[in-house]
Amino acid sequence: MRLLFIHSDHLTFETTDKAGPDDLAETEGVPMDGSMEDCVTAFITVESDDENDLEGVVDNALEELEDVSGQLNTRSIVLYPYAHLSEDLASPDAAKTVLQSLESELEAENFDILRAPFGWYKSFEISCKGHPLSELSRHVTSHHGDEVDDDADDDAEDEQAEEREPS
Amino acid sequence: MRLLFIHSDHLTFETTDKAGPDDLAETEGVPMDGSMEDCVTAFITVESDDENDLEGVVDNALEELEDVSGQLNTRSIVLYPYAHLSEDLASPDAAKTVLQSLESELEAENFDILRAPFGWYKSFEISCKGHPLSELSRHVTSHHGDEVDDDADDDAEDEQAEEREPS
Ligand SMILES: [Mg+2]
Repeated sequence: MRLLFIHSDHLTFETTDKAGPDDLAETEGVPMDGSMEDCVTAFITVESDDENDLEGVVDNALEELEDVSGQLNTRSIVLYPYAHLSEDLASPDAAKTVLQSLESELEAENFDILRAPFGWYKSFEISCKGHPLSELSRHVTSHHGDEVDDDADDDAEDEQAEEREPS
Repeated sequence: MRLLFIHSDHLTFETTDKAGPDDLAETEGVPMDGSMEDCVTAFITVESDDENDLEGVVDNALEELEDVSGQLNTRSIVLYPYAHLSEDLASPDAAKTVLQSLESELEAENFDILRAPFGWYKSFEISCKGHPLSELSRHVTSHHGDEVDDDADDDAEDEQAEEREPS
């Protein structure tokens, strides 16, 4: 799973057209438009490798979401499905399962969650605050030991999370 | 090189802090803030592999920029350096060379270019129009034959460009 975090003054979106076959696009349990202020927007690409252990990747993604939102001192998170952070996408069903799980787990922890629907083209407007932590990216998997991790101080045994600096 | 294109009603940015050592951050020939309307914003990550043939990757990136701006019927392009589209970054010097070359080549073709400076944290606001072509991503290299290309109709012999669908 690839995650791109933007610390935002605001995020607004509105669905436009379905991006694929009718049964691909989520229509239940998600708003067709929405907005949030003073939040972290998480653009999320679920990858094919994640399908080997969806529960594991959700657990590790939750740790990253908790870590980043803690650093940014916000409890407001936008979960935004995004196919452009990887070339190796999970199936739509797996992606939807992961996004729904992240939403329900974070809501159970009393985060304020806005989840944008999967399978739709969407117009959006987003701002980025511009401080050094306002753009972060992470690569999360369910496992360990088979990927390069650039973080010298990485101490996680059951996850791979790589943090990147903006340029 | 990774390219993420957003067809935007507007893009506004402002530099905040330098993202690294003093000599990393561009200060000459680029504005410290700027905005553009009705444009395509190209978020660009120059990758280490591109350093083997900077001229070749610039040539092929120009083809993609011309192709996408043509499809979107705009001559206004924002070149926005972005480190979050790949894990394998080129050196800052190579990245700056590529971005500067793209700017000068596109200006020579009478495109209206706004280039955001490399090496700075920046606040920004961007909108995405939301039609089916308003978010596109491409992977461009200088060469051919050693990467998977998902485009069945790809007829380019000297480039690899992969187009992705939004979700
Ligand atoms: Mg060529």
